[in-house]
Amino acid sequence: MAPPRFPALKDTRFDGWHFREADGRGKLAPVHLDRLPPSDKPFGNGAKNGDKERVEQLAQELDLLQEHFYADGRYKLLVVLQGMDTSGKDGTVRSVFSRMSPLGVHTVPFKAPNSTELAYDYLWRVHQRVPRAGEIVIFNRSHYEDVLVPVVEGWIDNDEAQRRYRHLCDFERMLTETGTVIVKCMLHISKDEQKERLQARLDDVEKHWKFDPRDLQARARWDAYQQAYQAALAATATPWAPWTVIPADSKTHRNLMVATLIRDVLQSLDLRYPLPDFDPKSIRIE
Amino acid sequence: MAPPRFPALKDTRFDGWHFREADGRGKLAPVHLDRLPPSDKPFGNGAKNGDKERVEQLAQELDLLQEHFYADGRYKLLVVLQGMDTSGKDGTVRSVFSRMSPLGVHTVPFKAPNSTELAYDYLWRVHQRVPRAGEIVIFNRSHYEDVLVPVVEGWIDNDEAQRRYRHLCDFERMLTETGTVIVKCMLHISKDEQKERLQARLDDVEKHWKFDPRDLQARARWDAYQQAYQAALAATATPWAPWTVIPADSKTHRNLMVATLIRDVLQSLDLRYPLPDFDPKSIRIE
Repeated sequence: MAPPRFPALKDTRFDGWHFREADGRGKLAPVHLDRLPPSDKPFGNGAKNGDKERVEQLAQELDLLQEHFYADGRYKLLVVLQGMDTSGKDGTVRSVFSRMSPLGVHTVPFKAPNSTELAYDYLWRVHQRVPRAGEIVIFNRSHYEDVLVPVVEGWIDNDEAQRRYRHLCDFERMLTETGTVIVKCMLHISKDEQKERLQARLDDVEKHWKFDPRDLQARARWDAYQQAYQAALAATATPWAPWTVIPADSKTHRNLMVATLIRDVLQSLDLRYPLPDFDPKSIRIE
Repeated sequence: MAPPRFPALKDTRFDGWHFREADGRGKLAPVHLDRLPPSDKPFGNGAKNGDKERVEQLAQELDLLQEHFYADGRYKLLVVLQGMDTSGKDGTVRSVFSRMSPLGVHTVPFKAPNSTELAYDYLWRVHQRVPRAGEIVIFNRSHYEDVLVPVVEGWIDNDEAQRRYRHLCDFERMLTETGTVIVKCMLHISKDEQKERLQARLDDVEKHWKFDPRDLQARARWDAYQQAYQAALAATATPWAPWTVIPADSKTHRNLMVATLIRDVLQSLDLRYPLPDFDPKSIRIE
């Protein structure tokens, strides 16, 4: 049986930023993180203010689309945001999704698992938080942390990593086949940009709460994390849940690209309002 | 990568009652429900009282094994009980597992999904109830109802049934690869035996609560359910989670066979008490 497919995006500017099956014959597009410049702006128009306005317009469009999605009620939307520290996961949530009503959208942040969660398989806590019908859920970090961190830390060997990639693909396949559209974004920043953003958190007392000295340990393993991302993205870019790499050194451009992606995906769904099971004209409200 | 494997059972009396890969080369044993007599007693010794005593001995053995399993803490045990109405799922739980401490074992009955559960994929509620490390969980009905009932009722077509079989196999593979041992039992009764048991529920006021007139609708579709069971068991008997058919017209024999199966599986795990991280002899309690 043919696997389910992610909607085909008409916007050609996404080409080259997708980890996905290139031709439907099982070949992956030859995408490599280290050849994708984090400072690129494939969706930018050159003027930062103009781009900011477009993000705001898109956010308003997304608000209307989300209401339509909620009313339609046939689908679930799961947005997965991954990226190194300071890559802009929180900022993306705020800028792209905050116009939507919290009635139908919410964010799930995944931290290190607690002792209860560790007593179960690692997808146990994840599965509990997937979207219900009509709902949009954003995973701020996700089940991908359960391969990235253990691989870089050396807690699991390659066999176990392969097993987990398979679990993730199988899990996402089941979700897709039961009505979930999965959009996976890798927010791609440069090591230099991270340095500036971490320094900004040190320089501002109101940003100290965002800084954790342990973030520097992950930074020290930058190359290992890039390799782990490359391997995980390539292994889990399926026809039903491809990855999109978002060049994210520019916050405005990052928001613009993510918002465009979500807008295009929602528009591809051919949303409709459910037909009423009553005749509105026949009902008279006294 | 080789798939995980269910423990090899030494007791040859199980042979012929397993839906499983016969030879490890991907061939399923040619097991057919309609050739397995529900009145057979492969584990019986001929004397009912003797068999009852052995069930009781096994239940006591299982109590000790469960404590060992709990202390070991490396594994999870999931027992799936499926079968037509009156096939003895509740009775098996009571007779085989009730000597164990409720600290480490519990039963999850699955009824028709409620409106919240229906808003998610059908494995959402199931995944939440899987065992944690050291725990034994018995599913009284299970995720298999999500293929059996829709197939018989004609709510899903064959393509969708195939998709769901795959979801179930993938889900159980992930559970197995994260430390869960899955024992799936199909309690196999004859249509005549069901008639007697349903009648007994009508004849006894203290059993009326167990009777639901809708059970007669499922009984009217007996052959369709047997076919649906045959298809589901064959499609989901994996090397990591085979099915065992339990001839269940005799309650005593049913208990004997399930108890022997669980005992043999637990014994195959080579359970051990965790080594203390202190020297018991060096500690003096004042």
